[in-house]
Amino acid sequence: MGRTVYYTASTLDGFLADEHDSLSWLLRQDVDPAGPFGYDGFIAGVGAMVMGATTYRWLLDHLDPADGWPYEQPCWVMTRRTFPAPSGDVRFAAGPVVDLLPALRAAAGERDLWVVGGGDLAGQFADVGALDEIEVSFAPVTLGAGRPLLPRPLDLELLDVARNRSLVCARYRVAGPLAASVP
Amino acid sequence: MGRTVYYTASTLDGFLADEHDSLSWLLRQDVDPAGPFGYDGFIAGVGAMVMGATTYRWLLDHLDPADGWPYEQPCWVMTRRTFPAPSGDVRFAAGPVVDLLPALRAAAGERDLWVVGGGDLAGQFADVGALDEIEVSFAPVTLGAGRPLLPRPLDLELLDVARNRSLVCARYRVAGPLAASVP
Repeated sequence: MGRTVYYTASTLDGFLADEHDSLSWLLRQDVDPAGPFGYDGFIAGVGAMVMGATTYRWLLDHLDPADGWPYEQPCWVMTRRTFPAPSGDVRFAAGPVVDLLPALRAAAGERDLWVVGGGDLAGQFADVGALDEIEVSFAPVTLGAGRPLLPRPLDLELLDVARNRSLVCARYRVAGPLAASVP
Repeated sequence: MGRTVYYTASTLDGFLADEHDSLSWLLRQDVDPAGPFGYDGFIAGVGAMVMGATTYRWLLDHLDPADGWPYEQPCWVMTRRTFPAPSGDVRFAAGPVVDLLPALRAAAGERDLWVVGGGDLAGQFADVGALDEIEVSFAPVTLGAGRPLLPRPLDLELLDVARNRSLVCARYRVAGPLAASVP
């Protein structure tokens, strides 16, 4: 079985997007999609995707309709909102995440299940022990406010680190809930 | 003249400490103080230090009084609070940062001025264009809430990246305020 992996970019201070869901700070960064932790290698290993409604809305607003839906993999959108009929293999589900896991894992097969975001969705997978890894690429930016990377207290294990041009990239195993504080 | 550098540890999601100012998540990490970005090499290049009142309070609460004040360098504490007479070379100042800069830089001389934290103090240096670099070591932890790493919108330039055991370490030049969003 493949991994369930939250693969995302972040600001240095842990934001996925600014308060208006803008990614302009990310899209102007120098990055090699064929380099370490790059998108090309990652997406080739993905068998299925799952994302939150805000992420899906962002894609609808920013993709060029002439290009069509960019993913070949089946993609679940966790939402209670109503969206127009999708142009690609997009399926809507209301959750909770745990009810959807068997279908997601079956669709991913031997390949990875990509938890695209946002942070709370990744947290919902972690809550039920279903998030295996986090791969994060840090852009050389701070925002000071915005959409949080992963709003949960978790212990991780560093597996790998690399630089991809302007980005610092790291891969972690999700070890579990944060160990209790020692007073 | 040396650098003015904000050298700090952070969680992966951009927190310096939890909401109760606990660093227990950091103090249990595996790190080599003589390794890349390690404390030993860093402190040897520091000529003067400046910290906020919360950081100073944390040190007073957590240092062993029998060991005395651990720093040889002159250390300014930016505060309007009243503290007991310090045991080391500690000087209290009420700010603003810009008024203190000449004294800090003179004390640091050819060595670095270490902005110890917290995040807002580092931000105050950035606000007046007086923060040269950021060196951050990310612990393999998320907290989801706590004291923010650097609550300002800034553009950075990645200068160096390394792994120190469980930590991902990166060094940045502070380029300036975040470039305006492209709509």
